[in-house]
Amino acid sequence: MAIDESIIKKELERRRFCHLPILNPRCEDEEFQILSGVKDGFTEGTPVAIVVWNKRAISDYYGELWMRPRPGHADLAYYLKFGRFYDHRGGGRASGRETVARIVAGAIAKAVLKQTIGVEVSSHLVELGGVAISREDYTFEDVVKSWEKPPLPMVDNEAMKRAIDVLISAAKDGGDSIGGIGEVLTTEVPPGGLGEPVFDKLKADLAKAVMSIGSAVGVEFGLGFRLARMRGSEANDQIVLRDGKPRLETNRIGGTLGGMSIGEPIRFRIAFKPTPSIRKPQRTVDLEKMVETTITFRGRYDVSTAPKAILAAEAMTAIVLVDHAIRAGLIPRVIKR
Amino acid sequence: MAIDESIIKKELERRRFCHLPILNPRCEDEEFQILSGVKDGFTEGTPVAIVVWNKRAISDYYGELWMRPRPGHADLAYYLKFGRFYDHRGGGRASGRETVARIVAGAIAKAVLKQTIGVEVSSHLVELGGVAISREDYTFEDVVKSWEKPPLPMVDNEAMKRAIDVLISAAKDGGDSIGGIGEVLTTEVPPGGLGEPVFDKLKADLAKAVMSIGSAVGVEFGLGFRLARMRGSEANDQIVLRDGKPRLETNRIGGTLGGMSIGEPIRFRIAFKPTPSIRKPQRTVDLEKMVETTITFRGRYDVSTAPKAILAAEAMTAIVLVDHAIRAGLIPRVIKR
Amino acid sequence: MAIDESIIKKELERRRFCHLPILNPRCEDEEFQILSGVKDGFTEGTPVAIVVWNKRAISDYYGELWMRPRPGHADLAYYLKFGRFYDHRGGGRASGRETVARIVAGAIAKAVLKQTIGVEVSSHLVELGGVAISREDYTFEDVVKSWEKPPLPMVDNEAMKRAIDVLISAAKDGGDSIGGIGEVLTTEVPPGGLGEPVFDKLKADLAKAVMSIGSAVGVEFGLGFRLARMRGSEANDQIVLRDGKPRLETNRIGGTLGGMSIGEPIRFRIAFKPTPSIRKPQRTVDLEKMVETTITFRGRYDVSTAPKAILAAEAMTAIVLVDHAIRAGLIPRVIKR
Amino acid sequence: MAIDESIIKKELERRRFCHLPILNPRCEDEEFQILSGVKDGFTEGTPVAIVVWNKRAISDYYGELWMRPRPGHADLAYYLKFGRFYDHRGGGRASGRETVARIVAGAIAKAVLKQTIGVEVSSHLVELGGVAISREDYTFEDVVKSWEKPPLPMVDNEAMKRAIDVLISAAKDGGDSIGGIGEVLTTEVPPGGLGEPVFDKLKADLAKAVMSIGSAVGVEFGLGFRLARMRGSEANDQIVLRDGKPRLETNRIGGTLGGMSIGEPIRFRIAFKPTPSIRKPQRTVDLEKMVETTITFRGRYDVSTAPKAILAAEAMTAIVLVDHAIRAGLIPRVIKR
Repeated sequence: MAIDESIIKKELERRRFCHLPILNPRCEDEEFQILSGVKDGFTEGTPVAIVVWNKRAISDYYGELWMRPRPGHADLAYYLKFGRFYDHRGGGRASGRETVARIVAGAIAKAVLKQTIGVEVSSHLVELGGVAISREDYTFEDVVKSWEKPPLPMVDNEAMKRAIDVLISAAKDGGDSIGGIGEVLTTEVPPGGLGEPVFDKLKADLAKAVMSIGSAVGVEFGLGFRLARMRGSEANDQIVLRDGKPRLETNRIGGTLGGMSIGEPIRFRIAFKPTPSIRKPQRTVDLEKMVETTITFRGRYDVSTAPKAILAAEAMTAIVLVDHAIRAGLIPRVIKR
Repeated sequence: MAIDESIIKKELERRRFCHLPILNPRCEDEEFQILSGVKDGFTEGTPVAIVVWNKRAISDYYGELWMRPRPGHADLAYYLKFGRFYDHRGGGRASGRETVARIVAGAIAKAVLKQTIGVEVSSHLVELGGVAISREDYTFEDVVKSWEKPPLPMVDNEAMKRAIDVLISAAKDGGDSIGGIGEVLTTEVPPGGLGEPVFDKLKADLAKAVMSIGSAVGVEFGLGFRLARMRGSEANDQIVLRDGKPRLETNRIGGTLGGMSIGEPIRFRIAFKPTPSIRKPQRTVDLEKMVETTITFRGRYDVSTAPKAILAAEAMTAIVLVDHAIRAGLIPRVIKR
Repeated sequence: MAIDESIIKKELERRRFCHLPILNPRCEDEEFQILSGVKDGFTEGTPVAIVVWNKRAISDYYGELWMRPRPGHADLAYYLKFGRFYDHRGGGRASGRETVARIVAGAIAKAVLKQTIGVEVSSHLVELGGVAISREDYTFEDVVKSWEKPPLPMVDNEAMKRAIDVLISAAKDGGDSIGGIGEVLTTEVPPGGLGEPVFDKLKADLAKAVMSIGSAVGVEFGLGFRLARMRGSEANDQIVLRDGKPRLETNRIGGTLGGMSIGEPIRFRIAFKPTPSIRKPQRTVDLEKMVETTITFRGRYDVSTAPKAILAAEAMTAIVLVDHAIRAGLIPRVIKR
Repeated sequence: MAIDESIIKKELERRRFCHLPILNPRCEDEEFQILSGVKDGFTEGTPVAIVVWNKRAISDYYGELWMRPRPGHADLAYYLKFGRFYDHRGGGRASGRETVARIVAGAIAKAVLKQTIGVEVSSHLVELGGVAISREDYTFEDVVKSWEKPPLPMVDNEAMKRAIDVLISAAKDGGDSIGGIGEVLTTEVPPGGLGEPVFDKLKADLAKAVMSIGSAVGVEFGLGFRLARMRGSEANDQIVLRDGKPRLETNRIGGTLGGMSIGEPIRFRIAFKPTPSIRKPQRTVDLEKMVETTITFRGRYDVSTAPKAILAAEAMTAIVLVDHAIRAGLIPRVIKR
């Protein structure tokens, strides 16, 4: 297939949030290099390898954090599993920057989906710092457009403004952070195609994919937890004829039944915890001396990682959909020309 | 290892709910047969295969449902993916009965965990039909005991009584159904052991495992969606010394950091939608004639499948923990005697 | 797809060799039961589970072999890996009978190949007890027919008679055993379809599949070891036009290039060692007392397992081809009707 | 673990064969870069990524070969599977240079084996261009030393000289090529550890690993095809006591029984076909015009690729042994310090 560097650049650009320095003090401009798999602008059927070089120098600052795990961060887990040989600088593999790789792969997956089965994937924030959008009537196009009017991808301007206030006030309050809830949604996914009936249900594979993002703490499909409080007669999406095809009248369930896509858009929400690196003093243990102590993080940090995390979730969704579309035979493994 | 048929029987017994016929009109007594892998009461290191025979005759009744997919059920998805060759009787592979196999495997996984790394797994309902328990101070033992005083595994008697009322009133209201929320929790899981740092994070694999249960529509770890509304300073579990070891002061995160276990109990919640098979008239499409029609389910049904589903989630959790404990080298692949 | 019990029975019948009791003193008549996945003679898209019941009683005789590993047999390896909990009766999982399961699965794989991409698979013996067939001009049909004229599947009658003499004389010589070489071959396999370019080369997956058979000690594709002694100008199959398509003039390479099928038949040979269970006294170690000792096997045995083993290799080949045909998109994962 | 760039350099150096320009006219000096996973000379428990940069410019020459597949080469297979978008330059992914990556990974695997379970792996040529070594009494040390006295790794000097003559004469004869047979062997592998009892037998995984090398056309364990011509009483390795342990008196079987290692060295042989790229005119098809034609390769070529291929086989063996040692719990997944 045709692969253009611009599709990767576009996704990386969405991740920069330079309009809102509080979200990305670094405003990183990513430089990447395609090592293999693309020749004259077309994939060759061989694995595509891309390196995103890490230009930003590692701050000397991190020395203070050595063997003093930050609360809420993965430092402690790495120490417990790998011992002294963990990379605490910038969080090592648990760094939020790790999602850059997901977004690059997702850019290609999104292109594959669009060029083959015509499915598009997007995402937005439905809640940030406790401020929720107040609309439920938004369309896929509204969601796509929410990225065009910076700084935050929210389909409700009023909520967006209040969310920015919350971000600023958390930052001012001694360098605190906030969490958020994002939603991934797609256009209509081919009926009866994606997802396996038992363990590799589409909702199961999507849940795993997004829960592999560091800050994700919850996921719900369609109305999710709200469905658990409804009666069957309220929750069941009635089956109707639309354009001669059996379709759901509503899509409370989020686009799958029995683990398989049914011609409806996929939609699900992910809860992201607040950034664990905050500038307030926190209690920890000095692992060398095995005594309790206090640390105060002084590095640059994102007041909320939710805006970047939802992009990673969007990317992971595209990757899972490509995988299942191949398994379902909807995307050929090889496109011969 | 020693494997006793009684551990399997015990788990199947928990699933029967015969004290509350509204939950299990069939009150099935399961008969199983160990085909391979166990000799003289010990496993041999070879795969253990067990068949649970399906004694219950398929009701003639199901004929009415042929090519008339039940709203909320997997029928439509099977038709869209597999065409006319799907098994609509009792739901085929999408039947709630499919979880019996998970529970049998989970019984063995639970025995493995207990005999090797000393970890126990249990579960309970924290909400049923919108009635939530009002305690947060329950212990692992409280949860285990909630199964000993039937009919519902809830650690709050008052809530349990109201939940039963809701079940009965939904059933009376024309055969409606209700959903619920369950929680799986464990005793302390070895620190730094279970879970891989990037894609196979423990929380990701657990999310996939429980989202593969038919009625699961959401999952959240620790405080989950509530964490998304907190500030970092409220959400971060402080690190303290306890018995000379670095531990979390609280466990809001649910037992993992960076995708890995850290010595704390694992805890997470799962939302289950209401049983889709209800006796109220529902709209559907006759797939032979491609016209809209109405169906009314007349078979036996469980007013809520959440109590059985949370057992399946508990079983899946044990299976995932065994897998990761083997990967981490905490459980040897072979125990030589 | 249509699945008929008769296709399984037919393959099991080929394995009986009742015409030559020296090869199968037990002349087992296998009884099998389809547990799942087939409804009204058609597969449902769900996994097909089949049990072949083991009717033959375990001989008391095996007690003598407990903790006295038979030379050439897997007993020693099981003891070293699993300790005292290995099943020595009849060889446990290392028994030649284990290949029954492969043959049952292969029967279905062969039906799938024939019904979808029109590929057939067969096999024969090219050497037994050192007696080789003297023809190279046999066709696929000759090979298929070699199974119709018992007792041995060889395309050279003269060689077959001498091979039977060798079998009889080995048996008479104190209960000795012999090895053999078999060949698996197919009709033309779709060009450019099966096999991945690097690690999952078709020849690599086939080699693994047949080397997983207990008695297999070697495998060679096309002319195999003979190719290693040729010059490039002799070994390279020239590329010619046939029926308007690029084809190999000869097929010395055995049907793949770069790990992928190219429109030619697949052909490869497998060396099988002699049956390790012989009736001659052999040296071993008593693992309880840790002293050297001698054992003499007195149970029933097959003077050569090669005839059954080549059937297992044929079955494994069909299974690998189905897997790769699915991966290549040549066989849909789901056939909707 | 400690990882030193020198261990990688050493293996790449063995692959150069600069003493014998006929084998490697390019005498490539490889430049590699460790991208991730190593910090201060120690692995971090994270994946190690290494890039070997391809410095050699692609010759313009290859234009002639476009759509004219070389006999014996993978060109035809790539065209048939991927269509016009295959990379014919230097053979693309089917290039012999692809084994460089295997050798780099193998260097690390060899270090892991040595540092953990004390197993060493080496290899040599037992036959080249039909000239076989005439000794069977060589030790592991003899094999290791065969690499120290260039130019060919053969334990029989006389045979080596004749093999060089054969190489030279093939090259002179219009640019022909020759094949060879190599052997991989190890020191004693822990008993009862490596290999799974049924499908992932050690011999099966090793067979797949080495058959994934482009020029490999056959593999045999221990005496291999010779075993198929022996009687059981000749082939069975008798079990004796040595140093108080049950051991094989001989090791005709090549180091495994029932698919598992038994404390003996692993040894097996691989047949490599002659280099397909020769300078003699060969018949092929012009795929654009679909007419038969003739091509004559004019690029640099290795008169035999067997010496490089056996190194790749040695590397693949080390990788498979590490994998199985981890699965057997003999190598921990994480070494904590």
